[in-house]
Formats: sequence, structure tokens, C-alpha cells
Amino acid sequence: MADKNASRPSNPNVSVDCVVFGFDDEQLKVLLIEQRTSGDFAPQLALPGDLVLQDENLDESATRILKELTHLEGIYLKQFKAFGDPDRVNNLKDQEWLRTVRENPDARVITVAYYSLVKMEAYRPEAASFAGKVIWQNVSEIPELGFDHNKIVNEALARLREEFEFKNIAFELLPKKFTLTMLQKLHEIVLGVQLDKRNFRKKLKKSDTLQPLDEKQSGVDHKPAQLFKYTSGRK
Amino acid sequence: MADKNASRPSNPNVSVDCVVFGFDDEQLKVLLIEQRTSGDFAPQLALPGDLVLQDENLDESATRILKELTHLEGIYLKQFKAFGDPDRVNNLKDQEWLRTVRENPDARVITVAYYSLVKMEAYRPEAASFAGKVIWQNVSEIPELGFDHNKIVNEALARLREEFEFKNIAFELLPKKFTLTMLQKLHEIVLGVQLDKRNFRKKLKKSDTLQPLDEKQSGVDHKPAQLFKYTSGRK
Repeated sequence: MADKNASRPSNPNVSVDCVVFGFDDEQLKVLLIEQRTSGDFAPQLALPGDLVLQDENLDESATRILKELTHLEGIYLKQFKAFGDPDRVNNLKDQEWLRTVRENPDARVITVAYYSLVKMEAYRPEAASFAGKVIWQNVSEIPELGFDHNKIVNEALARLREEFEFKNIAFELLPKKFTLTMLQKLHEIVLGVQLDKRNFRKKLKKSDTLQPLDEKQSGVDHKPAQLFKYTSGRK
Repeated sequence: MADKNASRPSNPNVSVDCVVFGFDDEQLKVLLIEQRTSGDFAPQLALPGDLVLQDENLDESATRILKELTHLEGIYLKQFKAFGDPDRVNNLKDQEWLRTVRENPDARVITVAYYSLVKMEAYRPEAASFAGKVIWQNVSEIPELGFDHNKIVNEALARLREEFEFKNIAFELLPKKFTLTMLQKLHEIVLGVQLDKRNFRKKLKKSDTLQPLDEKQSGVDHKPAQLFKYTSGRK
């Protein structure tokens, strides 16, 4: 039998989910929480996320929720997409958990997703509220997450890589002066691929975004490499 | 007195708004509707938009709503941002109109915005449902719109220009073979600026996206110009 409310306007819950990518000079990771359960079912991993409150806008909501669940603050979160499949919170495991935390666990939830990229060393997340644990998970080894969070992470990763390729956001992750090897390594970590050194340098030269400095590395136990900086206009 | 519900989860209405840009070889326009009113107040211009229904996802909602209000279909709509200021539908004029069409005119509305870019000649919008008129409005002459729709149009335009610059989406608006003058004109229309011919061609040459053809324009009353196409991989 068709749902008689199917063609009625929806009054969903609206939530925010945060995809925080962490970069540690070796790997790209994503911040996950383990849901604290009061039931007798196994806890799931998920993105830090919760419902938007009546008096806050979406950006404020993202900032508050990330802080409440992980104690992280001062992180620039960028909204990237709303996810609204009508049945995105309806699977059994998610329903079990929602019944322990939500007033209307059956309500449809439309979520607005944010992402961020930070240097991991600068942030120390701590679990709080309904987050039982927080973990930095390697993006190449993400297990099954609650809700549609695997999809959200994948789309955030695609967006991050796109921004990285088109807008050179790399400069936020590098010191002001860097070597081409450092830059290549960063690209390999974020894009998740091995790059050919010659092609990488050829492409860089063409893009006109780097300025060679009259300066070399110091304090290294190999032949010091030349240092570069981003040309002005790209910070 | 503080609103006692301020820190309660929000159960907003969720809507979708569509920013359809039209390109007509001369100008960049945006599709607006005039709200049909049953009250005695002046109708406002706004983006085509309406509430998401209980059984549809966000993309389905955008497609349905655009069709219901303007008869346009077969248009690729790309989601770009959710807008969720708590008071985005609270000004007097918007409230007057909402009271004539909505069950809960006071409810907070979070909207998910989509945009599109089409060749105007291929589409003939017609007003329907609560749209009293549809008009193609020049983007440089947009009047005051309902709700926060001026903000939504501005952000859509910024996104469109960004995609245009970084991803060369221009090829969708040009014939397969085109002259550099046609390409420059297109860039000027979409970006809303005059470009210097020499700099434009220098930048193009560097970007390596065009392939010169062994062919010239025909049927023109000036010296025929060389034709180009996009290099493969960019369609």
C-alpha cells in the first residue's frame, strides 16, 4: 500500500555531518567517532554529526557539533553537499542507535555535509557527548560506517581532490618555503596516487604558480634541494 | 525573552530552489518567476522553488519543481549549496505570500539550491502552478527578489564562473568547431568582464586545451578566421 503521506511536504529533521581530513606528512586520514550505545548492540563508526538547532544557521551548527563531539575548534569547515535520500537513516542498525538518542528516530533526516583539511599535529580530538571514541582512520581503509556516511566521505574526498587539483590548496599544508619533493609527496598523499617526478615537475613549471628562491634546504643529510614558494596571489 | 525552543532540534520545512542560467550569444540571464498572489499585495520575483515532498530525494525534487513551475525539463541541475539562516523567510513580504500557499508559513525553511547553464534557444519556459509569469532576467540587472534569493543567485553565479574558469565547461555552449573570437565572447559574457585579446590568447595557448584545425570559417563577410576544437579528453 502506498504511503498516504508520500506526496506531502516533508518536515524532516535536518542534521550536519563533518568530514575532517587530517594530513600527517605520511597519510591522509578522516576523523570518525564511535557511537556510544546504551543498548546491547555493537557500536558503529560514523562521522561526527547531529541535528541542527532551531536558532542556529548551518555553519554555526557544524562548528558547534564538531566541538561537542570531538572538542575540536578553530577549524574552517566548508559546506559541500546536502544528502537527502528519503531512507538514508532507515537501516536496522541505524534505527537501533537512533532510538537511544533521538526523540523521533523514524523521522526522515536530510543532512548537510561539511569538510575540512587540517594538519593533524595541530589538533588533538577527544571524544565527548555521544561519541564514545574518536579515531583518525586512514582514508584507504575506511570500514562500513553508519547511515550513508561512506558515501559522504567518498564525495568529500572527491571534492577535496578536485579543489586540490584546480585551486592549489596545497599551500595551506606546506611551510612557506618548500622543496619540490615535499610538494610531490603532498600531492601523492592527498590524491592517493604515485606521480612521475618528471611529469609532475613539467606540469608545475607550466602552471606558473611557484617561484624558485635563491635559497636551499639546510640541516639535511643529503644534497640540499632548492626551495620554492607560491607566487603571490596564491598566498 | 529568549525563545524557549531556540536550543531544540529544528524540524524545518526543506525546499529546493533552482538557478537556471541561460546563454543567448549576447548575454547571460537567469530564469525568474513572478509569484502568483491571491492577496492584494504586489507580486514578487523569485527563483523557481518549492518544498521537498516526503517520498523524493533532493535531485528528484529539483527536477519536479522546475517542471511544475516553468515546464522546463531535461535540464541537468547541479546541487551547489544549502541555505539555512533561521530567519530567511521571515520578512513581511515573504510572510504575506507564504500565508497564501503554505500550511505552516511561519516554519523555518532550509533550502537546497541547484544551478544549471543552458542555451536559451533550446528551451521555452512557460509559467504554471503558483508562477504567474516566467522571465529571463539579465544577470547584471537583477531586481530585489523574494526571500534570500539575491544571495542564492550571487553564490550560484560565483560558482558558475569558478567552474567555467577551472573546468572549461565552455565547450557545452559552443559548436564543435569555433573561432577564438567566439570563445573570447563566451568568456566575456559568462565572466561579465571585458578581456584583452592578446592576454586571452596567450593564456589559452598555455592551457593546452585547444587544437587548431586545418579549416577556416565559411559564409562570413569578413576574412574567415581559423577554427579550433577542444583537445580530446575535454570532449
